[in-house]
Amino acid sequence: MERCAVLSVHTEEPGRLTRRYGSPALLAAREQVAGWMAAAGLAVRRDAAGNLFGRRDGATAGAPTLLLGSHLDSVRDAGNYDGPLGVLTALACAEALAERAEPLPFAVEVVAFADEEGLRFHTMYLGSSAVAGSFDPAWLDWTDDDGVTLATAMREIGGDPAAIDSARWAGGPLLGWTEVHIEQGPVLEGLDLPVGVVTGIVAQTKIAIRFTGEAGHAGTLPMDRRRDAFCAAAEATLACEAHARTTDGLVATVGQVAVSPGAANVVPGMVHLSLDVRHPDNEVLAGACRTMRERSEAIASERGVAVSWETLHDHPAMPSDAGLSGALERAVVAAGLPVQRLPSGAGHDAAALAAIGPTAMLFVRCAGGISHNPAESVAEEDVAVAIEVLDRFVDDLMMTG
Amino acid sequence: MERCAVLSVHTEEPGRLTRRYGSPALLAAREQVAGWMAAAGLAVRRDAAGNLFGRRDGATAGAPTLLLGSHLDSVRDAGNYDGPLGVLTALACAEALAERAEPLPFAVEVVAFADEEGLRFHTMYLGSSAVAGSFDPAWLDWTDDDGVTLATAMREIGGDPAAIDSARWAGGPLLGWTEVHIEQGPVLEGLDLPVGVVTGIVAQTKIAIRFTGEAGHAGTLPMDRRRDAFCAAAEATLACEAHARTTDGLVATVGQVAVSPGAANVVPGMVHLSLDVRHPDNEVLAGACRTMRERSEAIASERGVAVSWETLHDHPAMPSDAGLSGALERAVVAAGLPVQRLPSGAGHDAAALAAIGPTAMLFVRCAGGISHNPAESVAEEDVAVAIEVLDRFVDDLMMTG
Repeated sequence: MERCAVLSVHTEEPGRLTRRYGSPALLAAREQVAGWMAAAGLAVRRDAAGNLFGRRDGATAGAPTLLLGSHLDSVRDAGNYDGPLGVLTALACAEALAERAEPLPFAVEVVAFADEEGLRFHTMYLGSSAVAGSFDPAWLDWTDDDGVTLATAMREIGGDPAAIDSARWAGGPLLGWTEVHIEQGPVLEGLDLPVGVVTGIVAQTKIAIRFTGEAGHAGTLPMDRRRDAFCAAAEATLACEAHARTTDGLVATVGQVAVSPGAANVVPGMVHLSLDVRHPDNEVLAGACRTMRERSEAIASERGVAVSWETLHDHPAMPSDAGLSGALERAVVAAGLPVQRLPSGAGHDAAALAAIGPTAMLFVRCAGGISHNPAESVAEEDVAVAIEVLDRFVDDLMMTG
Repeated sequence: MERCAVLSVHTEEPGRLTRRYGSPALLAAREQVAGWMAAAGLAVRRDAAGNLFGRRDGATAGAPTLLLGSHLDSVRDAGNYDGPLGVLTALACAEALAERAEPLPFAVEVVAFADEEGLRFHTMYLGSSAVAGSFDPAWLDWTDDDGVTLATAMREIGGDPAAIDSARWAGGPLLGWTEVHIEQGPVLEGLDLPVGVVTGIVAQTKIAIRFTGEAGHAGTLPMDRRRDAFCAAAEATLACEAHARTTDGLVATVGQVAVSPGAANVVPGMVHLSLDVRHPDNEVLAGACRTMRERSEAIASERGVAVSWETLHDHPAMPSDAGLSGALERAVVAAGLPVQRLPSGAGHDAAALAAIGPTAMLFVRCAGGISHNPAESVAEEDVAVAIEVLDRFVDDLMMTG
């Protein structure tokens, strides 16, 4: 908890926490963690993407590696825990192993990814993609709002765009990747539980919807002659909400709304909506999107309004590894707690790392489910539970792995 | 029609018609009309606000004055007829009187107001307010988007801010103000009629509504835990629409929508809506606004969302003068057409001029009810009917006035 507060000092904006990829703040936070890693006796390494690793070798050469960690970058005006909590609980676990000084049947590597949020370059899983080998070199030319390229930002933190391939995992067999992260939702709080085991990252579809009616004078166009694009959009939004409310585990969100021409005395002629739909099951999600599209089209058609429906992204569900998750569950039981399984509605580095090995996650309760917000808050006791579970998880793997 | 096209050449923006108060384009259009007025034998006068008048005196000193006309300014990317049609039909009527060269029992003055739309300074009835004596000197300090004051713009077209009081009508008794204007709505087209007599300008209430819920992560916040400000706003919008649809003559429009924080993956925490409600009857309008407020509050409350409801403007209905409107109706009948009465959903200079004398309006059918749009279109035959009705209206007043 203290270390989370220490890291929060490293920000680009006075008075609020913002730590973008390639920024001096990110570099300072990473080097702070590197210092703690070295102090814990870990072998410190930085890769071409700017990611940080602290390794404790296994007892035998060629032993597999267990990766533990999270990311150090943040969203704008962030809280202290989204990312750092996972890095620092992994560090605490490595410190406990160092104290015990026993030979390990596998290596443990604490990982601090340089970018997961993608705030600066609108990337997805920049850091872990480099490790997973799915980093697209075309990203290097992407620019931030000031025209700075990703390649330049990478160099600013000691990375090497030309050698980005060298960041790909080359450390031999992987036992897997396990991440501790705040839940960013209210489920654990509602159940009064400190931690939960993540069943996987839900499937997600991002859709852009455009409603085209006809603009008109708000004073002279009678109601029965209108083709109001916003009323059609409003009705479609409520239909999507109603479908999500009646489908277990489904969430649907209209987060962006643009009304044109957007004058108080003009009937809206065109409306753009963003629609974000998620469900743990790919088939349920696909069916829900079909239903939402059909209802939206029927609603608009009834109003003489045209609909264009464009699927921007379609991410399939990424289930956690049964073996690693089973070990996490046994660790939860060993800590004297009931096992609560829950899906992750948000994306995490596991989505990229699943390409190179098994993945699992442990969620920690956060107050009010609030995240991506300075009000982000976790209880010290819950963090202690997470560290205990992580310790017991490693113990479990030492016996079973 | 030709003259409408000639005037449309005077614009601030190449390729589209925009004629703001104080612009060289407005000045050029006004001087073009002044030339036509002079050619018709009218005595031309410009006032301190930049309005233009062309007078044909009555036969006796102290005879009352009939004001006929409209405005020369436009909205952005306007059509050719909103405003100019009323000025030019009045001019045609004055030309017919000049040809007949008969003595008149009253003076006729053709008026071209310099600003009705308020595009540049967000004023209401700038030109006619000056004539009605309701021009607020505080407006002189208002600035446009480039920081130019209204006073400066007034001087640019030869006006005199210091002498704005001199623009107040001082020409003796008024027979009244009569304006020909495109309907800007689809009613006459639906009835297949070229013209209609305006019963009055409807009452209008402008409201700003704010819905405050709670922002949250679109992936992690379950549907039953959300306080989505946009879903509340959407439901309230549909309730307002439903109430307007079931109340004869009522129109309600949500034209502006701002969603905060406005990210595709964040549940909306706050939404601002503009609501414009109009009805010919003040009491019906007030009752409708109360109902809409109650329904919006009930909808929001059900969702755990707070509502703030602020009435920004409340304009009472402005009925046309029975005497002048009766003369217009007799003129319509004399032209061999059925009389159609209809309210004006839009505001017009009559709203300001009613303070100094009787007012009436004649609406001309426009294609598709489209206005404030380059697609604005009127038929030549309909304009001919409007001119005939205006001629017969003046004849009627000569007999009855």
